[in-house]
Amino acid sequence: MASSSVKNITIIGAGMVGSLLSIYLARRGYKVSIFERRPDMRTENIPAGRSINLALSDRGWRGLEGVGIETEIRKIGIPMSGRIMHSISGDLTYQQYGEKDQAIYATSRGILNCEMMNLAEKNGVKIHFNERCAGIDLEHNTARFENTLTKISSSNSSDLIFGADGAFSAARLQLQLTTERFQYSQNYLEHAYKELMIPAGPGGEFQMEKHALHIWPRGGYMMIALPNLDGSFTVTLFFPFEGKDSFATINNPSECLQFFNRVFPDAVKIMPTLTEDFFQNPTGGLVTVKCFPWTYKDKMALIGDSAHAITPFYGQGMNCGFEDCTVLNSLIDQFDGDWNKILPEYQQARKPNSDAIADLAVMNFIEMRDLVGSPQFLLQKKIEARVHDKYPQKWLPLYSQVTFSSIPYADALANGRRQQSIMQEVMAMPDIDKRWDSSEVENFILQKIS
Amino acid sequence: MASSSVKNITIIGAGMVGSLLSIYLARRGYKVSIFERRPDMRTENIPAGRSINLALSDRGWRGLEGVGIETEIRKIGIPMSGRIMHSISGDLTYQQYGEKDQAIYATSRGILNCEMMNLAEKNGVKIHFNERCAGIDLEHNTARFENTLTKISSSNSSDLIFGADGAFSAARLQLQLTTERFQYSQNYLEHAYKELMIPAGPGGEFQMEKHALHIWPRGGYMMIALPNLDGSFTVTLFFPFEGKDSFATINNPSECLQFFNRVFPDAVKIMPTLTEDFFQNPTGGLVTVKCFPWTYKDKMALIGDSAHAITPFYGQGMNCGFEDCTVLNSLIDQFDGDWNKILPEYQQARKPNSDAIADLAVMNFIEMRDLVGSPQFLLQKKIEARVHDKYPQKWLPLYSQVTFSSIPYADALANGRRQQSIMQEVMAMPDIDKRWDSSEVENFILQKIS
Repeated sequence: MASSSVKNITIIGAGMVGSLLSIYLARRGYKVSIFERRPDMRTENIPAGRSINLALSDRGWRGLEGVGIETEIRKIGIPMSGRIMHSISGDLTYQQYGEKDQAIYATSRGILNCEMMNLAEKNGVKIHFNERCAGIDLEHNTARFENTLTKISSSNSSDLIFGADGAFSAARLQLQLTTERFQYSQNYLEHAYKELMIPAGPGGEFQMEKHALHIWPRGGYMMIALPNLDGSFTVTLFFPFEGKDSFATINNPSECLQFFNRVFPDAVKIMPTLTEDFFQNPTGGLVTVKCFPWTYKDKMALIGDSAHAITPFYGQGMNCGFEDCTVLNSLIDQFDGDWNKILPEYQQARKPNSDAIADLAVMNFIEMRDLVGSPQFLLQKKIEARVHDKYPQKWLPLYSQVTFSSIPYADALANGRRQQSIMQEVMAMPDIDKRWDSSEVENFILQKIS
Repeated sequence: MASSSVKNITIIGAGMVGSLLSIYLARRGYKVSIFERRPDMRTENIPAGRSINLALSDRGWRGLEGVGIETEIRKIGIPMSGRIMHSISGDLTYQQYGEKDQAIYATSRGILNCEMMNLAEKNGVKIHFNERCAGIDLEHNTARFENTLTKISSSNSSDLIFGADGAFSAARLQLQLTTERFQYSQNYLEHAYKELMIPAGPGGEFQMEKHALHIWPRGGYMMIALPNLDGSFTVTLFFPFEGKDSFATINNPSECLQFFNRVFPDAVKIMPTLTEDFFQNPTGGLVTVKCFPWTYKDKMALIGDSAHAITPFYGQGMNCGFEDCTVLNSLIDQFDGDWNKILPEYQQARKPNSDAIADLAVMNFIEMRDLVGSPQFLLQKKIEARVHDKYPQKWLPLYSQVTFSSIPYADALANGRRQQSIMQEVMAMPDIDKRWDSSEVENFILQKIS
């Protein structure tokens, strides 16, 4: 229980992170209200085409374990133990993500969010839907809302406000407009994303390997696919806005088919609604948001994407937001509910790590689209895997540090850079493709690590 | 005259850049209205302590020449032909800025701005004061304003809107909130500024050399002083917010005097109002703003600080904004008033250059506070000056490229980096302090340049 005077907490946003946070707080005895801009997705249809599947990994599971819903959620996830690269000629290459028993879990954003809202309400959290945040009086802990249906304005006062309202956060905008020295950047990639679909086969079967994340790496762009429970795959094309091969050059169904037949021939055969999906679904931008501070006195804090929106290429956006909740929860213990101490510590602890995963995500985009298919890259991964197998304490691949551990992201980034510089030397060795598993190479690496 | 349908132009902001732009446009026959948030500074007192003197240099003069007011303005400027470094022990070192006849001009922001508003009105520009921009309907070329005195709201429609409303631009915020893929960053330095004062001597005389910019470089921070027409100097302390020597550690007059006596002993003797100024004047943040795009279709454009707020360390903020006007003016000629072509060309031309001067300004802060006083730095400048004197076509110092030329800032930055890497090699030569003017050193440099 809180020892400070905080009793009522308002959360802006009933997305994944806002919902999880509300459960943590409600179980500690706080009275929690959530205000969500969108309609209740449990009773209303949400528009399609913006769902980029989630890949739950260790940090996400830890967040769910903290409120005891990991078993429930695991039932709706599909384990993907590696990635399968599709070449233009249709050759498949499999690359395991971690140990044999490790996997990331493809999970439907919609189902997960609904489950978590249900659980929040079971814990006494009140969720108000269709309430758009129109501003916050930071000094007086008061948030203003406008109902998107009735247009009625209202205001809500509480002892503490969390902004969990995503990449285009109204809470963060309030900090930008009213606090001094607010550091802020929003950077868009030159690539956008477009959601497409591979339906289930005739008997509801999966038309490609189910337990893998599929990638079509093509250099300047790429396509990925993640399995859904119903046998379908959600496909996402990451593609430049402008340039030779880009959204700007595909303007009609025939141009679309021509392009897909040329570069994704194996996929296009199982994408019967390709041209409809391509022209009906929105083209989404990919933004990285960094800001600081995340908090205002002991009155407000940002959490999840509102504090650190990242690109989806490491599959860590939600996982990072859930880790925010885990860290915040342990700080509430550590400081016995004294929010004057919790909030500064929270932002100091999380800021370097969210900056690191933002950079890692952009780096992984380059790796996925440019390198994943190349023989050199696959050889390097094979050497790293061999060193890891023999000396697991000394060499944990960067992907595993990010995905299958709770090593702080900033440490993982630093470790990864050190590993990469060692591997650059290794890959420059003469005849490395012939003696990649020699004791000489092994000793070189071991010496460099220590 | 404009060949397109643009007749009425609205400018938000009657600062230096908005006023100059209005004159350029009015003289071309456009009907120009300016809406300014503040009161008319020609009739009302403006609050002190936020005036950082301006240093007009070549790009600024060129902007003024374009509307024929350079002679008028030169009368209110004080030429500063170099900088004078003050050491702790009171030793003075003089460093000339460029050629003997070159100088930057200390100019009062207030006087210059008033002169330019007068001239704007003489050219038929209507300036509305106390009108705060409350938002812009970009699609319909309509800006909303709220009068800060009467609280009456109004809206203004025109054919084209310019946002010349400074570092905290309402026009830019509109782009951030409503346009897709808006790239944006605002970054504050860890240093702030505080305006202080050295009054005129008993007979109105200057108490330090009049034709110089005075610097007290002290490593982690610095103080500068620029002359005013009345014999006084406006002093600015650039000082960290936090840390050992910082605003956070100076909390009363005795701490203030103790600090100034320790690090600025020669200055403190001629600063009788030091402690009053220190605690009454605001502590101002130093922000760099970068964004893109600067324009919305052929309907709106940002100009000056609203598009590219920079730190004051190269004395280029206003000069850069005036250069925006010069470039825009020549593009109006080039495209015969077709704003569909002018605006895209304007932002493409100016963006790399405003990015470059932003980076140069921050680099110059480091140079001014850390290096300017060191013997190594002075030797390096002496070598560069010698090479420049003998081979003026081959070696123009970076400071001169930025200050006394119209070389695009981006080119100056690239040239400066190349020069710096050559000079690093030169300064690493053994006994360079003894043979700095040898033909060997000279030949080494000449060979590197070509």
